[in-house]
Amino acid sequence: MYCGVDIGGTHTQIGAVDASGNVLDHEKLNTTSFTQARDLVITIAYTILRMAKVSGRKIEGIGVGCPNVNPKTGMLRHAANLKFKEEISIKDELAQYFPGIPVVVDNDANAAAVGERIYGKARNTDDFLCVTLGTGVGGGVFCNGKLVYGLNGMAGEIGHMIVEPNGRPCGCGRKGCLERYASAGGILDNYLEICTQNNTTPQASTYRQVAEAAKAGDPLALQAFDKAARVLGQALANIACVTAPTHIFVFGGVAQVGEILLAPLRKYFAENLLFCYKKTAEEHPAVHAEEHPAVCIELSELMETFKDAAILGAAALARL
Amino acid sequence: MYCGVDIGGTHTQIGAVDASGNVLDHEKLNTTSFTQARDLVITIAYTILRMAKVSGRKIEGIGVGCPNVNPKTGMLRHAANLKFKEEISIKDELAQYFPGIPVVVDNDANAAAVGERIYGKARNTDDFLCVTLGTGVGGGVFCNGKLVYGLNGMAGEIGHMIVEPNGRPCGCGRKGCLERYASAGGILDNYLEICTQNNTTPQASTYRQVAEAAKAGDPLALQAFDKAARVLGQALANIACVTAPTHIFVFGGVAQVGEILLAPLRKYFAENLLFCYKKTAEEHPAVHAEEHPAVCIELSELMETFKDAAILGAAALARL
Repeated sequence: MYCGVDIGGTHTQIGAVDASGNVLDHEKLNTTSFTQARDLVITIAYTILRMAKVSGRKIEGIGVGCPNVNPKTGMLRHAANLKFKEEISIKDELAQYFPGIPVVVDNDANAAAVGERIYGKARNTDDFLCVTLGTGVGGGVFCNGKLVYGLNGMAGEIGHMIVEPNGRPCGCGRKGCLERYASAGGILDNYLEICTQNNTTPQASTYRQVAEAAKAGDPLALQAFDKAARVLGQALANIACVTAPTHIFVFGGVAQVGEILLAPLRKYFAENLLFCYKKTAEEHPAVHAEEHPAVCIELSELMETFKDAAILGAAALARL
Repeated sequence: MYCGVDIGGTHTQIGAVDASGNVLDHEKLNTTSFTQARDLVITIAYTILRMAKVSGRKIEGIGVGCPNVNPKTGMLRHAANLKFKEEISIKDELAQYFPGIPVVVDNDANAAAVGERIYGKARNTDDFLCVTLGTGVGGGVFCNGKLVYGLNGMAGEIGHMIVEPNGRPCGCGRKGCLERYASAGGILDNYLEICTQNNTTPQASTYRQVAEAAKAGDPLALQAFDKAARVLGQALANIACVTAPTHIFVFGGVAQVGEILLAPLRKYFAENLLFCYKKTAEEHPAVHAEEHPAVCIELSELMETFKDAAILGAAALARL
């Protein structure tokens, strides 16, 4: 069995997964109840050891998905959504408990992309992008069948592409990052902005409420998703000009709204996509806006088919 | 010896290159004097055969750099800067004359990147971007030590990233593409626009004249390059968020102005770059704008050190 650990701002999930992607065992910890990263790692280690003992199976590898981690060193760096102040190597700390067993640590967006590659829709695709939409916006980039790491292992930080010069301030110190429009918090901000523009008192004060309102057909909440889709669609069309993915998979909490986001996202993506990434590229450029992109935008199969997508993605890291 | 062929809108250059990058023989054709692509290919073939005969060396491989070619099939597609109407496979046509010898055809931007990898500054870098600035703007993307092809072999079309929504119309049928601001023609347009804004009669009507004026210190011509650098710097900072290159090499006719473009380019790139691609990423985000990027922007060594950079890049294609 492989073990997958997803460290999130609120919860840490730990699971044991077989080769087919079945989750054999599963445990959830409150991340916020740990003040030291090291204490969290120790608890994770003992949870995994217990799972191995109960199942009687051999641990083939351990994968950990975690925001703001350097995949080369496993070092946790000032993650905005985690409260830990220390900088420790989760990889080294965890590996102490599992001599001889590979421990792979990577950010959650890369874990989702690797999960899609191992268990999901990307099994037959060498060039794809996995976009995670949640508290932040992240990306996992596969080119030529390999995960792209790049400088400091920090490729795929697509949430920090600047999409609106002098736009909304971002936690990274700059302005107008994609994340500020297409993350859960960004969509809430879109909604509040649209309410102000319409002189309407907001009926929602959290992302969840905006998502519920959109599902119920509220036009302003739908506009908030439309704005996220427009900004994200433009950014993805620009990314297509860099790595030319054949598929884009959308993952994460915000992706759970499904077609409310995906339908306008496909529309804006097609509107902004260069003709050579479209199906009938030989025709006159003027008609290209109506053409169908050759790049598919789909919901992650990890989310569609499997429970515990985050655990599966993390476990997949150890299988890459 | 390897043969490199660079098919450009005005000239086609053909050269024989040894393993160290020395150009042994060299010929130039007028691309515009051929009305059929097939006639050009035949002339290229006979030129190479003559070079081989004269030198007495064995041809190890032939590389062809050409705009708007599909690297997988070698098919030439409606290239904006070439007048040929036919769609032929340059690869297949040329290969007929050289049985048993590998013929590799790729776009000129990929050829420049591969040339940098084989002969230039990218010899020790697995993750880099080569930006070509000339009649158009192109890119060659290396990730994990491999050239990225992607969908239809069309990765690296960075000149068509939309950098100004509803900006200048582009030949691709969309608006605001990077190419319309940072190519030779784009820089001329920058200049003319700046003259209008300043109620000044333009003193230049071609890109070459703008470049000469900038070298002579003309402030409006320098502003035209500054605008190109700003738009390009912002786009490169966004590309960094996708593939996280360690190096960016600038290539092509426009790059010949050197620091007139590179100095402001480095400045705007640093201003727009996410902190995690900077050297002291551990400090507070607020001071990051003043930090030095860990990503180097340098002039291509093919241009700096070697004559016949385009031939060298094309020849390198056959060595990848």
